[in-house]
Amino acid sequence: MYRVGIDLGGTAIKAGLVDENWNIVRDMSIPTDAHRPWQEVALDMAAMVKRLVADAQVNMEEVAGIGIGSPGTIDASTGTVVYSNNIVWEDVPLGEFIGEVCGKAVKVSNDANCAALGEVVAGAGRGVKNAIMLTLGTGVGGGIVIDGKVFEGGHAGGAELGHTVIRAGGQLCTCGRRGCLEAYASATALIAFTKRAAENDPLSLIWKMAEGNLDNVNGRTVFDASDAGDATAAKVVREYIENLGIGITDFVNVFRPDVVILGGGVCAQGEKLTAPIEAYVRDHAFGADLGFTPRVVTATLGNRAGIIGAAALSE
Amino acid sequence: MYRVGIDLGGTAIKAGLVDENWNIVRDMSIPTDAHRPWQEVALDMAAMVKRLVADAQVNMEEVAGIGIGSPGTIDASTGTVVYSNNIVWEDVPLGEFIGEVCGKAVKVSNDANCAALGEVVAGAGRGVKNAIMLTLGTGVGGGIVIDGKVFEGGHAGGAELGHTVIRAGGQLCTCGRRGCLEAYASATALIAFTKRAAENDPLSLIWKMAEGNLDNVNGRTVFDASDAGDATAAKVVREYIENLGIGITDFVNVFRPDVVILGGGVCAQGEKLTAPIEAYVRDHAFGADLGFTPRVVTATLGNRAGIIGAAALSE
Repeated sequence: MYRVGIDLGGTAIKAGLVDENWNIVRDMSIPTDAHRPWQEVALDMAAMVKRLVADAQVNMEEVAGIGIGSPGTIDASTGTVVYSNNIVWEDVPLGEFIGEVCGKAVKVSNDANCAALGEVVAGAGRGVKNAIMLTLGTGVGGGIVIDGKVFEGGHAGGAELGHTVIRAGGQLCTCGRRGCLEAYASATALIAFTKRAAENDPLSLIWKMAEGNLDNVNGRTVFDASDAGDATAAKVVREYIENLGIGITDFVNVFRPDVVILGGGVCAQGEKLTAPIEAYVRDHAFGADLGFTPRVVTATLGNRAGIIGAAALSE
Repeated sequence: MYRVGIDLGGTAIKAGLVDENWNIVRDMSIPTDAHRPWQEVALDMAAMVKRLVADAQVNMEEVAGIGIGSPGTIDASTGTVVYSNNIVWEDVPLGEFIGEVCGKAVKVSNDANCAALGEVVAGAGRGVKNAIMLTLGTGVGGGIVIDGKVFEGGHAGGAELGHTVIRAGGQLCTCGRRGCLEAYASATALIAFTKRAAENDPLSLIWKMAEGNLDNVNGRTVFDASDAGDATAAKVVREYIENLGIGITDFVNVFRPDVVILGGGVCAQGEKLTAPIEAYVRDHAFGADLGFTPRVVTATLGNRAGIIGAAALSE
């Protein structure tokens, strides 16, 4: 049997036909054009399903199900996009609509949940049953896998791991609260901290790495400057890792997963990021000297995690 | 059928025979004498099971199972008390031992988890499937019920909701970290904040409520002084509720439970506590204007929650 996974994003819709070993045997991508009526976008998604199946010369009966990862708050019980500020949808019955057009069962979940599930079935978390994944990008996406299944929360809007406060009264978060993990651990936050540190230290190597223009700062800049021996950059890295360590330790104290997976651009730092965080968790988790603390690893599937995880929703 | 629930505490062991409607039809309590070898304590617990069944003139075949709520870190998969600083046990195979003596299946979980499950099957959370419970006492105990079952975490040591950081670098917590919810929301913390506020304000009504001696301060004192119009006390109450609101909003963003249940002595304040917290969560939860936010209620079973919840483990 095959499954279709669709990764709906603000810019592009990616879809793939996935086999029983979680290989993407065929995939395609089209622009989202999110300003259109949602029904048009959904019809495009349904057309992608049919196209993938036809192009792979697979019979529709061989497709066990369709899964969709969508940005925003999802009601997985009904397949509804409750709200997405990314594609500006509200109460869109996406799963039902595509299910009717394709004649297949359709599951919908948050894109961060799908990435987590993808990594668990086929990537950095292969073989484990319980995992937490944080996607460190524009924001901090949270995905929770319990017993091999996505944990959505009791009602729509759960698993928002980025929106847990670690520094009450601190940095303003996009959600309106102050001090959320997202406001300290997203790539956006890292870039802002990097720029601020450079502004306060005209001699910092951050300036050199950014070729004299802070508009060139990205999520790698501060790590490069730190590696080159810059103390200002090293402090930004240290604080970034500590904040991430605090948040991850909190999730370990609550979930005790087998593994914590980091995704998003920042995770290109690999062990420079994961080794100190793993040590932080070991030192700070509740009863850690007697209890279990998880490995901290980086995601391995990249963009494929969203398609594979969406496909795995329908398992 | 009946079930036996045992609530193991540092001071006393309470046990009850529970019927199918979650009524405690017979109960008893003995001192723990925790300094004894654990086998002696466990034999006493097994004897309590037999005594309850005999006194109630119930046949042992009518007992579906035995559940135990224990302080500390529990490995529910094996029924082992991994570590408890309360009764100073380490790696005690409690479930297996009592199971062999009694010839019954025995489940073991953390006492805060049992309280949560008890409230869900028979108390403030009756009828719901997903609940979070915080027990505001010496510490902050956390219990998580997902789909009607206790959520233990992937490995022993999960569900430690009190040990999630809300103010990094803040108050020192018993777990060794700084800024945990427990360090702000336990009754212990509330009493410490009350005393400190009184020391800084010789005219505060806190002094009057404590009859001039801060050793008399308890978890009620500051609420009484605030009700009597004392601004210093009102500020302590406001900050206490805000910190609790921050932590509960975090858990709502992750779990989206049907209900949040508050237990422990502080919850005697009832709606004075729950109404502002419920409003805080509604105002601050992620996407709350479009999403679901739970009721916040106080526990109704008191000490019985531990016995009933332990019994319900074996369901």
